[in-house]
Amino acid sequence: MTIALARKSLDLITPYKPGKPIEELKRELGLKEVIKLASNENALGPSPKALKAIQKTLRDLNRYPDSDAHLLKKKLASRLGVKESMVIAGNGSDEIILLALRAFVEGGEEVVVANPTFLIYEIASRVAGAKVIEVPLKNFRYDLPRMREAVSARTKMVFIANPDNPTGTYVTRGEVEAFLKDLPKEVIVFFDEAYFEFVQEKEYPDTRKYLSKHSVIITRSFSKAYGLAGVRIGYGISNPEIIDYLNRVREPFNVNSLAQAAALAALEDRTHLERTRRLVREGKNYLYRHFDELGLRYIPSQTNFILVNVGDGKPLYEKLLKFGVIVRDMGAWKLDAFIRVTIGKSDENKRLIRVLKKIL
Amino acid sequence: MTIALARKSLDLITPYKPGKPIEELKRELGLKEVIKLASNENALGPSPKALKAIQKTLRDLNRYPDSDAHLLKKKLASRLGVKESMVIAGNGSDEIILLALRAFVEGGEEVVVANPTFLIYEIASRVAGAKVIEVPLKNFRYDLPRMREAVSARTKMVFIANPDNPTGTYVTRGEVEAFLKDLPKEVIVFFDEAYFEFVQEKEYPDTRKYLSKHSVIITRSFSKAYGLAGVRIGYGISNPEIIDYLNRVREPFNVNSLAQAAALAALEDRTHLERTRRLVREGKNYLYRHFDELGLRYIPSQTNFILVNVGDGKPLYEKLLKFGVIVRDMGAWKLDAFIRVTIGKSDENKRLIRVLKKIL
Repeated sequence: MTIALARKSLDLITPYKPGKPIEELKRELGLKEVIKLASNENALGPSPKALKAIQKTLRDLNRYPDSDAHLLKKKLASRLGVKESMVIAGNGSDEIILLALRAFVEGGEEVVVANPTFLIYEIASRVAGAKVIEVPLKNFRYDLPRMREAVSARTKMVFIANPDNPTGTYVTRGEVEAFLKDLPKEVIVFFDEAYFEFVQEKEYPDTRKYLSKHSVIITRSFSKAYGLAGVRIGYGISNPEIIDYLNRVREPFNVNSLAQAAALAALEDRTHLERTRRLVREGKNYLYRHFDELGLRYIPSQTNFILVNVGDGKPLYEKLLKFGVIVRDMGAWKLDAFIRVTIGKSDENKRLIRVLKKIL
Repeated sequence: MTIALARKSLDLITPYKPGKPIEELKRELGLKEVIKLASNENALGPSPKALKAIQKTLRDLNRYPDSDAHLLKKKLASRLGVKESMVIAGNGSDEIILLALRAFVEGGEEVVVANPTFLIYEIASRVAGAKVIEVPLKNFRYDLPRMREAVSARTKMVFIANPDNPTGTYVTRGEVEAFLKDLPKEVIVFFDEAYFEFVQEKEYPDTRKYLSKHSVIITRSFSKAYGLAGVRIGYGISNPEIIDYLNRVREPFNVNSLAQAAALAALEDRTHLERTRRLVREGKNYLYRHFDELGLRYIPSQTNFILVNVGDGKPLYEKLLKFGVIVRDMGAWKLDAFIRVTIGKSDENKRLIRVLKKIL
């Protein structure tokens, strides 16, 4: 068998490498107490209401999930003030990225992404056979004017992570509106808003406003603010025509029953969401203060993580592992001076700072 | 916005229509007692050991799943007598179909499928932009000699459901070996064995034997014999090179944590598997006997469902709904004379026969 078996586009792909799991580090180094501040998970844990909803659903696990995720979509639509035909549920919001590429991008067409940003846009676009046009960040922020200039007659999709990962920065309403002005409707603008629940800035745009006049897909996630990363559930919002195409290319049972039940219940769990937001706000201030003390520069963040300049990220990442602290090494993003730190519970943040003081 | 927004191949697609959910029928007709014999689910319910494993995992649902499904793949590999690098886990075995097409089939290449058979092969192949070559069944069985003849220099993949859905028939070791003989290695043969746990015939092939000399992908499911359709988990077996390509095109977190834990535990639940097999065996004999009495012809089945010739399927399907019995209407397969009936629990099978006697 030769390499020609697979599609040509696959040879360009470096698979995504997730944050190191807690159990793996415990196994490798024989450690008992490990904390993970690497994957922007919710340090409080999952929404308790979501877990109760899962338990009620277990008995019927021999049944296929609702292919339509009808109850979840109905509740989301009502919360979002859109029609149910404008919502789609995904096996994580990651899946909506893949569905969008599968529905709209033919091999050879162009996709515009920032660099660095969330890595899946580039990887999934290459799998789809697209030509990926990368536009550098400017001061760790999306450079929307240059991304607009990069749109050509061959451009089919533009990915905008807002807030961005791994920088934690955001683009403003004004910047987005300048970007969308006179943009051809054949260009789909994909707003990935996985962290939008954490945003505190007033200039952050409400992208739902652009759904009627532009070809916009918005995705959001239950993996971050709702603490449901393990069960895989996210959603997309767009106009009914785009949603219909996304439905045509998805698996009939893409979202499992437990995820549907969990998300539905999590939307009712205001307490957990507010506790999460407070934890992130307070933890962020604590970490900022101590990074300042340590003389470490960081990028102010609208999310539940912080990108920190430590001079040389990889060796520090590895030293932290030995102390049972998992952060994210930024090698895959070519941000070699940095580590990315998820905001944890108060004791986790303190432990990180304690260990950093010891090492630095 | 014009239709040209989406990829051309999407306009040929009729989305898959799942069996009617129990809750939907209850809502629509105000019925209290509804039984569903429509989606080949496990009538006994989920494996109890799997449910316990899920409960233990709930606490950590804020963490992302193991991207590698390492523990599950390790156990599967040991059970199957293959290397861990020869196994991949999927969000249902459906997902492995999509991954295979995404990794190996370029637009315009040919995919050979039977007709009728499991509908997803054709739908997913069309989404991938493939040209679908359909080979009719012969006496409700895959016609492997004609499928072999349909393989051309443009053929990239051949789907073989064994046992088949919706007929319940199977192809023999001899037929498969004749098919594989001198088949070019560039042609991937995809054996979908979602129902293999129910097979009783000795001539059913052990396709693992073909992995070393041919480009073969085998998929199996936890949705049927293990009763875990709701949580979405299936797996694929192939040579390490093919598995590596499948991994390159999957989402990093395609299989949720609860599914990984559930499947791992279900593999240890021999009691539930044996009870399931016995239920299907006994229920099948009961239904055969009463179909005979009613003068209904049916296709002898190696699975947990039976395709029954009722003369005119659609009106009978609808009458059964009014009595709170959901079976599968075969319209989407163009098998208009038939209904497909999943073998249920003893009281469900009796109710089906009672209602059929009333209607016919």
